[in-house]
Amino acid sequence: MAIGTLVLLRHGESVWNAQNLFTGWVDVALSEKGVAEASRGGLLLREAGILPDVVHTSLQRRAITTAHLALDAADRVWIPVKRDWRLNERHYGALQGKNKKQTLAEFGEEQFMLWRRSYDTPPPPIDPGDEFSQDGDPRYAHLGAAAPRTECLKDVVARLVPYWEQEIVPDLRAGKTVLVGAHGNSLRALVKHLDGISDGDIAGLNIPTGIPLRYDLDEALKPTNPGGTYLDPDAANAAISAVANQGR
Amino acid sequence: MAIGTLVLLRHGESVWNAQNLFTGWVDVALSEKGVAEASRGGLLLREAGILPDVVHTSLQRRAITTAHLALDAADRVWIPVKRDWRLNERHYGALQGKNKKQTLAEFGEEQFMLWRRSYDTPPPPIDPGDEFSQDGDPRYAHLGAAAPRTECLKDVVARLVPYWEQEIVPDLRAGKTVLVGAHGNSLRALVKHLDGISDGDIAGLNIPTGIPLRYDLDEALKPTNPGGTYLDPDAANAAISAVANQGR
Repeated sequence: MAIGTLVLLRHGESVWNAQNLFTGWVDVALSEKGVAEASRGGLLLREAGILPDVVHTSLQRRAITTAHLALDAADRVWIPVKRDWRLNERHYGALQGKNKKQTLAEFGEEQFMLWRRSYDTPPPPIDPGDEFSQDGDPRYAHLGAAAPRTECLKDVVARLVPYWEQEIVPDLRAGKTVLVGAHGNSLRALVKHLDGISDGDIAGLNIPTGIPLRYDLDEALKPTNPGGTYLDPDAANAAISAVANQGR
Repeated sequence: MAIGTLVLLRHGESVWNAQNLFTGWVDVALSEKGVAEASRGGLLLREAGILPDVVHTSLQRRAITTAHLALDAADRVWIPVKRDWRLNERHYGALQGKNKKQTLAEFGEEQFMLWRRSYDTPPPPIDPGDEFSQDGDPRYAHLGAAAPRTECLKDVVARLVPYWEQEIVPDLRAGKTVLVGAHGNSLRALVKHLDGISDGDIAGLNIPTGIPLRYDLDEALKPTNPGGTYLDPDAANAAISAVANQGR
């Protein structure tokens, strides 16, 4: 059976994206703009004739709600759903809840970009008593001491790739069209893996919110369209430039 | 392990409820009022300290969206989701898309109440070419010729009870709090089974929209609170009277 189609969807703008705060594992809701982006993402799926058979999401409401709204707009809200923390956004450690512009001013350009874009330098870990820590959150209770307190992109790759192999690849090998509703950094981790992007080059890759990114894969799960295909390339290019300028 | 808690939630008002049309398997959306009801249902769960561990829904967007909104309001939108056609509303056959008041005027009180409330008299089957038929709907393709063209409540019981036993009971026996997001008649079928209501008496039972109904079950899966407990009993009583007067 032919490998199914993979479609990646980063959640629409959240209320903290709009306020330029580091979010990570803090479970913030979509902004009004984010709600509209999610529905538009679903219309793009529908117009492209892409009919997801199954959806995988993180455990965070901005990705869950984006997938729900997109699938509703695409008339596929009834498909099976799988959720897992390994699709979560990167844990932003002690930066969670902090303003990006203030953080840039306080720590300087070099440290700021190291935390945001270096492959293997995590921010300082969040304190268990911090108001933006996930200690006590029942959705992560099963992780116990393995629950992260901060992550670099390398850590995200290390938890995401096993989920990809164990849960998503079997759906693709069954010929299904798979929608993955996730986050800027968990999708960067997946794209790094799919396209074989180096630890250095991944720093320059941004994924815009709400625009489905289609990957066609061969039997070895290598993209036949490297980098994927955005369903609205012009909007994707405009948004990618904007993301790159966050914090300025 | 103790039996978990069962919570039933009928979807909020749909755009066709608001227009007094027979809906059945037609996949209509929630009205604005229905959206508000769904969120309020979630707040009632939260206030009662009921934390669902898993949600079961039909394949219809009004139940799926109600469960999504309620769980979001209850801060449990991340729990595992299971969906199945056996939780769908009763298929209303050739009445789907018809106005209830007009149908009452056209066919008379006796026939109208027979179709609405008799246990074993289904409406005439819907024609495959009818605009409100589900022929060609991909979510039911796997049913083939077994897909219903009309149903009486007895038919709903016949498809629902196996789902209850195969999919919901194991979650309850594992000690989970289970939310079932479904429909007026699929929930009547379930309540009939749980409470051992006779084929005749079930005609008098109505379930209001958007108000969680909690059942506490013993080891034999018999309710220790027969009839269940609405989380907002006053609102439930008011709504039950209103439902009984539909079509008038």
